[in-house]
Amino acid sequence: MFESAERDPVMSKDDFAAREGALRTALLQRQYALLEKADRTVLLVVAGIDGAGKGSTVNQLNEWMDPRNIHTLAFGTETPESAQRPPLWQYWNALPPKGQLGIVFDSWYAPLMAEASSKHPDPDAIAFLAAEIQRFEALLAADGVQIVKLWYHLSRDAQAGRIRKQLADPATAWRVSKADRLVHKRYDRLRKAGETVIAATQSPHAPWQVVPGADDRMRMVTTATALLDAFNRKLPKVVAQPAQVGAPAFVLRSPHASMPAAMLPTAPMSPESYEVRMDAAQARLGQLVRNKAFRDRSLVLVFEGIDAAGKGGAIRRITHALDARQYSVMPVSAPTDMEKAHPYLWRFWNRLPTHGRVAIFDRSWYGRVLVERVEKLIGPEVWRRAYDEINDFESQLQESGAVVIKFWLAVSQEEQLRRFNERAETPFKRFKLTPDDWRNRDKWEDYRKAADAMFERTDTVGAPWHVVATDDKRQARVQVIEAVTNGLAKALGKRGL
Amino acid sequence: MFESAERDPVMSKDDFAAREGALRTALLQRQYALLEKADRTVLLVVAGIDGAGKGSTVNQLNEWMDPRNIHTLAFGTETPESAQRPPLWQYWNALPPKGQLGIVFDSWYAPLMAEASSKHPDPDAIAFLAAEIQRFEALLAADGVQIVKLWYHLSRDAQAGRIRKQLADPATAWRVSKADRLVHKRYDRLRKAGETVIAATQSPHAPWQVVPGADDRMRMVTTATALLDAFNRKLPKVVAQPAQVGAPAFVLRSPHASMPAAMLPTAPMSPESYEVRMDAAQARLGQLVRNKAFRDRSLVLVFEGIDAAGKGGAIRRITHALDARQYSVMPVSAPTDMEKAHPYLWRFWNRLPTHGRVAIFDRSWYGRVLVERVEKLIGPEVWRRAYDEINDFESQLQESGAVVIKFWLAVSQEEQLRRFNERAETPFKRFKLTPDDWRNRDKWEDYRKAADAMFERTDTVGAPWHVVATDDKRQARVQVIEAVTNGLAKALGKRGL
Repeated sequence: MFESAERDPVMSKDDFAAREGALRTALLQRQYALLEKADRTVLLVVAGIDGAGKGSTVNQLNEWMDPRNIHTLAFGTETPESAQRPPLWQYWNALPPKGQLGIVFDSWYAPLMAEASSKHPDPDAIAFLAAEIQRFEALLAADGVQIVKLWYHLSRDAQAGRIRKQLADPATAWRVSKADRLVHKRYDRLRKAGETVIAATQSPHAPWQVVPGADDRMRMVTTATALLDAFNRKLPKVVAQPAQVGAPAFVLRSPHASMPAAMLPTAPMSPESYEVRMDAAQARLGQLVRNKAFRDRSLVLVFEGIDAAGKGGAIRRITHALDARQYSVMPVSAPTDMEKAHPYLWRFWNRLPTHGRVAIFDRSWYGRVLVERVEKLIGPEVWRRAYDEINDFESQLQESGAVVIKFWLAVSQEEQLRRFNERAETPFKRFKLTPDDWRNRDKWEDYRKAADAMFERTDTVGAPWHVVATDDKRQARVQVIEAVTNGLAKALGKRGL
Repeated sequence: MFESAERDPVMSKDDFAAREGALRTALLQRQYALLEKADRTVLLVVAGIDGAGKGSTVNQLNEWMDPRNIHTLAFGTETPESAQRPPLWQYWNALPPKGQLGIVFDSWYAPLMAEASSKHPDPDAIAFLAAEIQRFEALLAADGVQIVKLWYHLSRDAQAGRIRKQLADPATAWRVSKADRLVHKRYDRLRKAGETVIAATQSPHAPWQVVPGADDRMRMVTTATALLDAFNRKLPKVVAQPAQVGAPAFVLRSPHASMPAAMLPTAPMSPESYEVRMDAAQARLGQLVRNKAFRDRSLVLVFEGIDAAGKGGAIRRITHALDARQYSVMPVSAPTDMEKAHPYLWRFWNRLPTHGRVAIFDRSWYGRVLVERVEKLIGPEVWRRAYDEINDFESQLQESGAVVIKFWLAVSQEEQLRRFNERAETPFKRFKLTPDDWRNRDKWEDYRKAADAMFERTDTVGAPWHVVATDDKRQARVQVIEAVTNGLAKALGKRGL
């Protein structure tokens, strides 16, 4: 695949002069059309072999186009911010909104490229990393991000010449790292790694194109043409279920959680035993999050459920045991305009806790397969692929050290009605009751169906659902906090605590 | 000031029951009115002596009001994110937009309280820290943030009793830190520190109120009443020039920078000497930012100037010497709605570089005293106070390790016209030219006057202005990058480099 680039094609000054103006004008027009329409984000991934002019290309594109609407996503070594989150976090975090162009330099291909160019590449590791990339790119592509990937390449001789030239000039010598000086010794290995990477991650919705890098003019014209092609194409349809590429990192529980048959517990919990168990659980939770073992972990709690099922009350019993500096409660409602201009999961990626902290989601990313499904805010193809996207997201969370525990709070229709009426009658509770709540009551069966499908598809061993009947509030709150302490103690290896 | 609180007043269950409903309803109504009007942010600062129920108050307010519109600002120990920025950064960063309520727990009073309650308090340190707080609060208050400060206090006996009670109960024992156990031994010292802190930071626009903390019911009713009062008051007018409280941390240069008398340099720079000097400067810059000494510093570059003065070109000559992973160029234009819902400097606080990085502002916070002044987007009282607010901001930047260098690029009217016409004629340069640019030409004198005032008031020794005539682009670009390398080398103590 590199034959043509290794011929190091050259463009004459005159040829270039004849094309530069038209290319720059067209790029600018397309960039403004994108901004105007704001129907997608365009991501240009700049990758390839060292010495092939990647850095200069990024600088040049910023000069040719309007840099105010270009975002360079370039992350070198791990930062304190990124080290405590999943590897893809920084790309999610910096993802430009629709209408904008992102240039990704030093991209999510770095770990795969490092493995593929190592002395003894591990085929399993390569397959795993490539699948991770494919899932990520398919998810972005399905959610409004157009990905164009350019691989810069040149011949061994041209590479050696370029590095010699840079080293000779004090103004550019700094650009040549020790690694670069070794690079031309490793040319064959890097070339082979490039072939592996491209083959393993080629896809119709995120295609690779090889760009000859030896000649500046040829490189820029090829780059600009490829980018223009992308601007002119429609956002390609994603064929595969994005999150199903490769072996999934999650295992579904069997049997999975399900809605309780009878809503009421056999005997309501007495205030006395409630107090004893709640106090004990809060004390235990307080100890667990203060334990050394929690310093490189985090806790992510998800609360979903029917309106008036008691999410707020259950959450407050948990936060009561925590220091206000250690947790955030994140209420999730309809997305803002900025959130709508990004893929669905973006706003949750942006709220991931650092180590030693607790993030509590009062409603969550499951809105996709609950309210958005039931209210038909999205098509079936969108919520159908969401299950595995969510499983994949939660797997990445766990890999980065998060303990993920999910709750579905279920209330009976009769008890819900009683609580609605109580809210309507108490002035300071009225704000909790909206016309939506009454409307949602009519859709009880739809929500039940959606919840059942959700349990079937997202009740994983690593991030289990706990279904809690909440007609008896005391019983429910104790069950919730005890599920949190048990889950956390297990994950920290501190069951005795 | 603590006499009344130290009587540990108590409210009966019946009295409380009679008032709770009305208070909660009123708080909710006010909270929704605030959200609706969105004319200000309300910040409730919760401070005071240990054991006076601060944590419970925060939890309770979240229960009494709609927690979806309450932001708890609670920062414990330094995080990796905050350690590399000025101390106030995390508060700026988490500041809720207008319409929302922020509860500040463990606030910007922590360093002052630590000093005031130390064994041998240093009056100078106290004065310095108090002035810093006053400047911060005055700036917020002047820019649409209403601050209410509650100091929770109780008698020595009540405090001792409360700590004993918490320690006896396993569910609350964890809340009592080792520091707390010592606290009642230090009661007198903390009480005195509280008096010092309140006296040093009392102000009409950010008033303190002492809340009796021994009795839960009395504490909540007093808190709710104080918050309601604040909701019902108008945003108070700030009398003092916010940034002038206390000894300023900046020194103005004398003589200060000024507009060049003649625009054209005596002799234009030849392409040959341009290349030699530019290459040398880029190489030097590359070495400086890679130097060990830069690892706990950062570089903040500000570019202002007349349209078509060549900001973009000068910036690109700098970034050319940098690794794309090490810098960000931040173009600044009209604020977004979210930015308008915050104090003016908020969006710049949000973009501060971590250590080892370069942040380049293509236009900046000086827009306040340039375009916003000239276009009359704000009143004179606003831009007049902006000079010292900006100096204070830049001082804080420097204290956190940033090297701040500012450029004003000046072009002659004739050369500007020539460049405008060139842009109009070249298709791929046309996007740089807007109708605003032509309109601004008519306001040449206004901008000149605004720039002169800006130099007079913000050309500080720590963050100097460099005025560069740019009719000769080569001369200008060399001057800019050499000013950067010289300034950076000096700050790093690497003049020889």
